[in-house]
Amino acid sequence: MYVYREEDGRKFVESIRDASIMALYFIGSTKTSTIPGLSIAGASPELTLYTPAVDVEYLVHGKPISTEYIPVTPEGIPTPALITRAALRIAKIPFLVVDTGSYIKPKIPHITLPSRIAGNRIDTGKALPYTIAKNLYEEARTLAKEISYIADIFVLGESIPGGTTTALGILVALGYNAWGMVSSAGPRNPHDLKRRIVESGLKRSEGLPTSDPFKAVSCLGDPVHISMAGFLVGVLEKGSKVILAGGTQMAAVLAIAKCNGLDLSNKLIVGTTRWIINDKSSNIVGLVKMISPEVPVIAYSYDFSNSPYQGLRYYEQGYVKEGVGAGGTSIAATIVKGISYTELWEAIHREYKKLIEEGYGVIKKE
Amino acid sequence: MYVYREEDGRKFVESIRDASIMALYFIGSTKTSTIPGLSIAGASPELTLYTPAVDVEYLVHGKPISTEYIPVTPEGIPTPALITRAALRIAKIPFLVVDTGSYIKPKIPHITLPSRIAGNRIDTGKALPYTIAKNLYEEARTLAKEISYIADIFVLGESIPGGTTTALGILVALGYNAWGMVSSAGPRNPHDLKRRIVESGLKRSEGLPTSDPFKAVSCLGDPVHISMAGFLVGVLEKGSKVILAGGTQMAAVLAIAKCNGLDLSNKLIVGTTRWIINDKSSNIVGLVKMISPEVPVIAYSYDFSNSPYQGLRYYEQGYVKEGVGAGGTSIAATIVKGISYTELWEAIHREYKKLIEEGYGVIKKE
Repeated sequence: MYVYREEDGRKFVESIRDASIMALYFIGSTKTSTIPGLSIAGASPELTLYTPAVDVEYLVHGKPISTEYIPVTPEGIPTPALITRAALRIAKIPFLVVDTGSYIKPKIPHITLPSRIAGNRIDTGKALPYTIAKNLYEEARTLAKEISYIADIFVLGESIPGGTTTALGILVALGYNAWGMVSSAGPRNPHDLKRRIVESGLKRSEGLPTSDPFKAVSCLGDPVHISMAGFLVGVLEKGSKVILAGGTQMAAVLAIAKCNGLDLSNKLIVGTTRWIINDKSSNIVGLVKMISPEVPVIAYSYDFSNSPYQGLRYYEQGYVKEGVGAGGTSIAATIVKGISYTELWEAIHREYKKLIEEGYGVIKKE
Repeated sequence: MYVYREEDGRKFVESIRDASIMALYFIGSTKTSTIPGLSIAGASPELTLYTPAVDVEYLVHGKPISTEYIPVTPEGIPTPALITRAALRIAKIPFLVVDTGSYIKPKIPHITLPSRIAGNRIDTGKALPYTIAKNLYEEARTLAKEISYIADIFVLGESIPGGTTTALGILVALGYNAWGMVSSAGPRNPHDLKRRIVESGLKRSEGLPTSDPFKAVSCLGDPVHISMAGFLVGVLEKGSKVILAGGTQMAAVLAIAKCNGLDLSNKLIVGTTRWIINDKSSNIVGLVKMISPEVPVIAYSYDFSNSPYQGLRYYEQGYVKEGVGAGGTSIAATIVKGISYTELWEAIHREYKKLIEEGYGVIKKE
């Protein structure tokens, strides 16, 4: 589904058919996610800190290692890593996990950025040290230079509960009027709470808004978005292309990357899901237009309303929507590897069935 | 230079021309390297513990980060990472570092195996816990499954001072009569010392020799060889090919991989240097014949006798010989990317000149 800049989107899609591809999933934590009522990317506010590590453990092994269950919302709705895993496996897309500062280290082989750090609550205005923000950016850029020759196209996804709030923080800190535009993993988007958190952080910071992305991130950001931006810039410098796989958080990545005046035409797309596009409580296209109007937005149109599983039907009621690169990875599987909608739909249902049968999913409402 | 199984070697070479390629360098430490007189892969026995991390920092950045100087022998002869870096850069080969248990963590983005651990001195017979040996193998195998689709051919190199002694330990523990066959980074191979260390470890272990590779490694091994073997097996299972890039240590990797009865025909080569082949104090072909006679050995024939730099001319006197995948990476640059001998020779000299000019090399004897 071409959502924004259709013509450029189509050109991009044509340019990456049968290309060599690699996916990277950037994980990290922000203690912002433990603020009650903010994030449902975990069964409880405390458990959101474990979600990034367990998401990627599930991605690799099809089951959690560090916890008993895979990440679910308080209602028991499964992590979008389910979609990502199904797409990666059926399309045989090679992938790696990049730990930028997960609260717990994932028990799978993964790339470590040496300056990895979990972010603090941003309502304090001190998310992470300035030098760490800078180092994470540079380390991710170095990583891109080490491996960029391996693929024509990189899919970049994320797992960071609380990430839409820190994304809002980064955007506001960089001077964008992004209030009320970021998405939520729940059907009721707690915009007021997000605004209070970011405003509190703004008040306690000095020198905001700023054009310095490291300053913005150190006050109101998190380890994930700055690392993704560093990797993005590194890859583009070497001439490969990128699918930024995520929802409104990708706007924060674009905003950081745009700080050095880069023209992003014909080099990347934002790849997301129909659930994000249809979300009336957020505005991904508005964000992209505001920050980098040259970047197309494409969405993968899953429809789970006829799914036999309640856990997946919830997605149609505005739960989860996106995460762990679910939309962009599905787009890549389709474009680059020619996987059909039906193949993906069935692969997702197979993975879900396996989860339930093996007892790793918790479906409280069923 | 085709050294062993020339015809199969040539077939292998033809099968990987213009293939997609990725290199991985496995680093780890064994405190065995601190036994005085054993390893010269560092300016002092203590400094050998820093060598793996600094080797790969140099690989990525062209300079050390964790220490003031790049790893050198006590004579000031530079690490073979110099050759590897030159080959990677001129051939644009993407690469990653895998930390299996380096004494210090490298300050570059790198893959972490969750069970990473520095090995103990093997003269105690307790190199690492049995479960850790098993986990490292499985984690590396998992890593291979995550990324194997990215490349047709993987180059696997190592940096582990003391590694020829632990390789001997692994071989002996697996029942091979490998005494006196492993190489050394110095011109005088301390076979007697190596034998005493391994015999001491044997005496203090129970149930050796064994056909269980995890037992062998847990008694007399180290974290690097078992991890390389796990990755090798994982890659071969997925159908990609491998250049085992190293000297006599690669025999230990082969020996572990052979424990599950794998036929390695037409799937990999050992890629090394002429210095290893010409070394009269070791016998790489003898080792390969004994362990996996189906695997060809190919060597890259550098000749530094006319180098303007004393530090490189030392290589012709039997110093260093191999390491950090220098030979295999050079072979890959030549076969897969068509880089000529002259191009490589000049690239190495440019890197060396830069090192000297920037003051990161220590050449005590010049």
